[in-house]
Amino acid sequence: MAASLRLRGAASGLRYWSRRQQPAAASLTAVCSRSMASKTPVGFIGLGNMGNPMAKNLMKHGYPLVIYDVFPDACKEFQDAGEQVVSSPADVAEKADRIITMLPTSNNAIEAYSGANGILKKVKKGSLLIDSSTIDPTVSKQLAKEVEKMGAVFMDAPVSGGVGAARSGNLTFMVGGMEDEFAAAQELLGCMGSNVVYCGAVGTGQAAKICNNMLLAISMIGTAEAMNLGIRLGLDPKLLAKILNMSSGRCWSSDTYNPVPGVMDGVPSANNYQGGFGTTLMAKDLGLAQDSATSTKSPIPLGSQAHQIYRVMCAKGYSKKDFSSVFQFLREEETF
Amino acid sequence: MAASLRLRGAASGLRYWSRRQQPAAASLTAVCSRSMASKTPVGFIGLGNMGNPMAKNLMKHGYPLVIYDVFPDACKEFQDAGEQVVSSPADVAEKADRIITMLPTSNNAIEAYSGANGILKKVKKGSLLIDSSTIDPTVSKQLAKEVEKMGAVFMDAPVSGGVGAARSGNLTFMVGGMEDEFAAAQELLGCMGSNVVYCGAVGTGQAAKICNNMLLAISMIGTAEAMNLGIRLGLDPKLLAKILNMSSGRCWSSDTYNPVPGVMDGVPSANNYQGGFGTTLMAKDLGLAQDSATSTKSPIPLGSQAHQIYRVMCAKGYSKKDFSSVFQFLREEETF
Amino acid sequence: MAASLRLRGAASGLRYWSRRQQPAAASLTAVCSRSMASKTPVGFIGLGNMGNPMAKNLMKHGYPLVIYDVFPDACKEFQDAGEQVVSSPADVAEKADRIITMLPTSNNAIEAYSGANGILKKVKKGSLLIDSSTIDPTVSKQLAKEVEKMGAVFMDAPVSGGVGAARSGNLTFMVGGMEDEFAAAQELLGCMGSNVVYCGAVGTGQAAKICNNMLLAISMIGTAEAMNLGIRLGLDPKLLAKILNMSSGRCWSSDTYNPVPGVMDGVPSANNYQGGFGTTLMAKDLGLAQDSATSTKSPIPLGSQAHQIYRVMCAKGYSKKDFSSVFQFLREEETF
Amino acid sequence: MAASLRLRGAASGLRYWSRRQQPAAASLTAVCSRSMASKTPVGFIGLGNMGNPMAKNLMKHGYPLVIYDVFPDACKEFQDAGEQVVSSPADVAEKADRIITMLPTSNNAIEAYSGANGILKKVKKGSLLIDSSTIDPTVSKQLAKEVEKMGAVFMDAPVSGGVGAARSGNLTFMVGGMEDEFAAAQELLGCMGSNVVYCGAVGTGQAAKICNNMLLAISMIGTAEAMNLGIRLGLDPKLLAKILNMSSGRCWSSDTYNPVPGVMDGVPSANNYQGGFGTTLMAKDLGLAQDSATSTKSPIPLGSQAHQIYRVMCAKGYSKKDFSSVFQFLREEETF
Repeated sequence: MAASLRLRGAASGLRYWSRRQQPAAASLTAVCSRSMASKTPVGFIGLGNMGNPMAKNLMKHGYPLVIYDVFPDACKEFQDAGEQVVSSPADVAEKADRIITMLPTSNNAIEAYSGANGILKKVKKGSLLIDSSTIDPTVSKQLAKEVEKMGAVFMDAPVSGGVGAARSGNLTFMVGGMEDEFAAAQELLGCMGSNVVYCGAVGTGQAAKICNNMLLAISMIGTAEAMNLGIRLGLDPKLLAKILNMSSGRCWSSDTYNPVPGVMDGVPSANNYQGGFGTTLMAKDLGLAQDSATSTKSPIPLGSQAHQIYRVMCAKGYSKKDFSSVFQFLREEETF
Repeated sequence: MAASLRLRGAASGLRYWSRRQQPAAASLTAVCSRSMASKTPVGFIGLGNMGNPMAKNLMKHGYPLVIYDVFPDACKEFQDAGEQVVSSPADVAEKADRIITMLPTSNNAIEAYSGANGILKKVKKGSLLIDSSTIDPTVSKQLAKEVEKMGAVFMDAPVSGGVGAARSGNLTFMVGGMEDEFAAAQELLGCMGSNVVYCGAVGTGQAAKICNNMLLAISMIGTAEAMNLGIRLGLDPKLLAKILNMSSGRCWSSDTYNPVPGVMDGVPSANNYQGGFGTTLMAKDLGLAQDSATSTKSPIPLGSQAHQIYRVMCAKGYSKKDFSSVFQFLREEETF
Repeated sequence: MAASLRLRGAASGLRYWSRRQQPAAASLTAVCSRSMASKTPVGFIGLGNMGNPMAKNLMKHGYPLVIYDVFPDACKEFQDAGEQVVSSPADVAEKADRIITMLPTSNNAIEAYSGANGILKKVKKGSLLIDSSTIDPTVSKQLAKEVEKMGAVFMDAPVSGGVGAARSGNLTFMVGGMEDEFAAAQELLGCMGSNVVYCGAVGTGQAAKICNNMLLAISMIGTAEAMNLGIRLGLDPKLLAKILNMSSGRCWSSDTYNPVPGVMDGVPSANNYQGGFGTTLMAKDLGLAQDSATSTKSPIPLGSQAHQIYRVMCAKGYSKKDFSSVFQFLREEETF
Repeated sequence: MAASLRLRGAASGLRYWSRRQQPAAASLTAVCSRSMASKTPVGFIGLGNMGNPMAKNLMKHGYPLVIYDVFPDACKEFQDAGEQVVSSPADVAEKADRIITMLPTSNNAIEAYSGANGILKKVKKGSLLIDSSTIDPTVSKQLAKEVEKMGAVFMDAPVSGGVGAARSGNLTFMVGGMEDEFAAAQELLGCMGSNVVYCGAVGTGQAAKICNNMLLAISMIGTAEAMNLGIRLGLDPKLLAKILNMSSGRCWSSDTYNPVPGVMDGVPSANNYQGGFGTTLMAKDLGLAQDSATSTKSPIPLGSQAHQIYRVMCAKGYSKKDFSSVFQFLREEETF
């Protein structure tokens, strides 16, 4: 959702794969030594809200899985389905040469790879390790270095799209890593997402997601401010939205995901801001953008302000609402 | 330019007129008592960079003009062309029952209407007074009241589009005032612009422009921050722009007017930020947004920060550059 | 309170008067033609929360009053006390040559001076008109011009200190106007305040108050942010406050009016943020600072952000709480 | 300088030591097993601009040193003076049971302690390791854990005060660690600073410095905004400063380190912003504050904006100027 890629002319020349476009091409380019016997077991570490449906889509495509999660209960469902459950990331690495990790934080990822029983303890030469967690790009680069030392391949492939897209297999993957390995990654990622975009060297997948979501947060808050101001100045919300959408103020937040109730149907603002992309998740991504900006000394005056606004919203009861609820946060009338 | 309206499906249901769409309809709806003899003289006050080409487009359509500008030199060209030049706004009002004003500031507009020799001193009952200046909506409302007292009609119709659009007659007018009079306004505005949008009561034309430009400034700065951060994180600018444009970060500033040199052709960033919409003008519009927000007690955290950023840029030598030069302002490397 | 002046060495060389310092000098310098018969009636317009106790302090000093308020009830108390109540600002000007106005907004002040029955309709030559309202400095300058045309004298003298200081006669007046008239103003202002500071030309009284309160808002929010961050990093609030107060972070908000409950006694934070200087009033003053900054093109990045924060707080139920409640606004834990 | 602690009544009750107060007490409380033979060698790692004069002050007090710096040249001066120079942090730990580290970044500190030839490789049980670097508090805590495992003691003791204070031995140390060890730390820190403040558990020294400097940056920018706005509104800078300093806007930046040239003597603003506390250093400390705020989910709307402003200043040629040059950055007139 939050960054669902909808294909457009703009995409021409972009090095990516789309199920709707060339599935054949995709499976062809996927032919490489490692996946010759294309249905060898795939490891999956992290079976949370997102990991669970992602792993199931790999199963649907006939891939046997080797599963691990810090919470045993998260594995039960897969065990019942006959998949192999092991007791550590190291054990996963021992049994599978292609592993996908889907974890909540940078530290979880570091533990899964470099921990006492981490993947690196037993990883095989030539293995393909794909991390779909959304974490700090500098951590991705550091993990890639350690993986390389073991003769294996690391790619960062964070996703756009929420639980719904994960279930329907319509996630978007932004992939960073060696271009030669992109086809091999596509073979697996293409089972879980409808778009797989190659972004460049390791870490650029994370960078692309962070930059997109920062701009998303800024334009969403901006749309909320502009709509709220216009309404107070006497404009009809639907009319204002139409004017903005045919003008230079047009943005995804105004024309596809308008935050003002009554302007559009089928978006969180039409449903009391339920579902969608939670304020807490946006605050987390903005925290990563903030960290990256600080470490690269890049000024992000509006990005850091957006971060602070979502931070405050989380403390004011908006944490579980969709991030477009910033309109509701800003609109309330003053009470005297 | 800055807010040029490009027609799209989104526009359906919008109460506006477009030359490309229904010129016939336009001239028909334009039939009303005042403009029966449709080519009676039209008054024009303010022949600056924008007013000059606008007035010429009225001439091209065969309207005789009654001209006034505080700087006599600004009128000479029209005098030579045989148009009538008078010595005050009052005199314009005496000779024409349809008047267009195009002035730089709220105070200039107040002077032209309510000044010692202002329009109101000699305005005829039933006259149509259209103010295309970009000013504070509260001033527009105040002028409308005074005009009404004289039995005449006032409409605010600020424009989007720069000098180029003014010359080619492709401006967009955002019109506020009584809906019954909209058709009459279209007859004249349609000669100078390709889109004439009805926004609602008096002042809403200004409001629509202010809100659009505030959102434009926010998304432009946001795009500059996101592109700059992505580049420092190792992403290729063109690739990043494509990813943003197929994602939820998409906005007019990223897909139509990208601020990063080398990403798009035919935009100011491809020409050292020459031409386009000046930083000073954006700072002025943001000042109006700030004033409107303060008087309506509407929080605009990012809008006011955008205002401050363009304020500082004006003081740092960017005043004459296009407003997309904020990328250049933010990108510079730290020097140690 | 909000800007109560506490005398210090720093004040040396400052052109002001303090009851505690030289009362004698004050009454001496006050000797001038107009106030020869020093107890001639004094006009007072605006008997609200502040004006009421201020007028009473003039009565205590033996000045007969000529009273007007748009709400007749506000005058009753004074009528019962034998003071003269009239039916318009003009009538006040007819009966008194020294008038003090204490009104809530710029528009109220404009109405009282330039309205249909305004002071200027009947003001006498040589009259001294002192406006203690907190309004836009540009409005003060405009009123001063109109007053001058009538041969009278205008001074702006906004106050620091809340209702409490108004009752106890300990307000601080920041005075703008001709220096020659300062002594005459002191005679009256000295009855209502303990400090009367000369700031310069007309409008500088307002400017001084606006600048002080903007810096106050910024340092208060900054103190709240620093204390909250420090506490979350494991520091004891009292210890952190002491360290800041002996360091370069020291400010009035940290050492005299600390916003963290439990750090100091006798301040609003020790009393659930009751009393003190309301968030709504701070938001109003920041709106004036914003307007002045916009019209003078002065960048105030933190000042405008502070404005937006208090704006949002007013909409989140903090409008009646003391402005130091920003600590409470920011501190709340995120709820997951 | 930047956070120089000047002792005041406010300090009463504060658990700290001041040379001016109780040197005797200090040396007494310092009596503990480790420093029985109080002049045993002290290790010093990091002889940069700050470390160099700090180490010399230890020499002056008669402590033999064991020196290490990644740049051998930095040690020469001490070698010539007869001090022992070794080739790694590990070697320092082998020869001294009290070590002070003064390094530029978190990574440098991690390397010096946990690196291949780090202190932890040869540290003796019971050693006292004091890190005076300004780094991320979370890194300090992590180092403390590793040090503890080796049976040694770690304290973070970042300094306030620049090179000048380091030379004159007037630094302020903010100390975090076990309170029992505070006296032992004082014995050494007291030779290099005039104030040694105990802040609490490990990491709180860093936290106190970060919070103070964040509030300092906010109030400095706020002072610059208020002074600049006041000047543009017609106030005399010296007069405005005096009014602020007797009012609630008073802060260290306005009364001790005013950023406006001509208002005070003996401060960087009186010397073209030379000397003092560099903009780059302030940007670095604000980056640490930002990181701490992000990881603790503490909203710092003004703190992060201050960070962005110093970030931009670094890119605009202010990196080497004192941080009070933000006044110069904001004041420049717009050029048309």
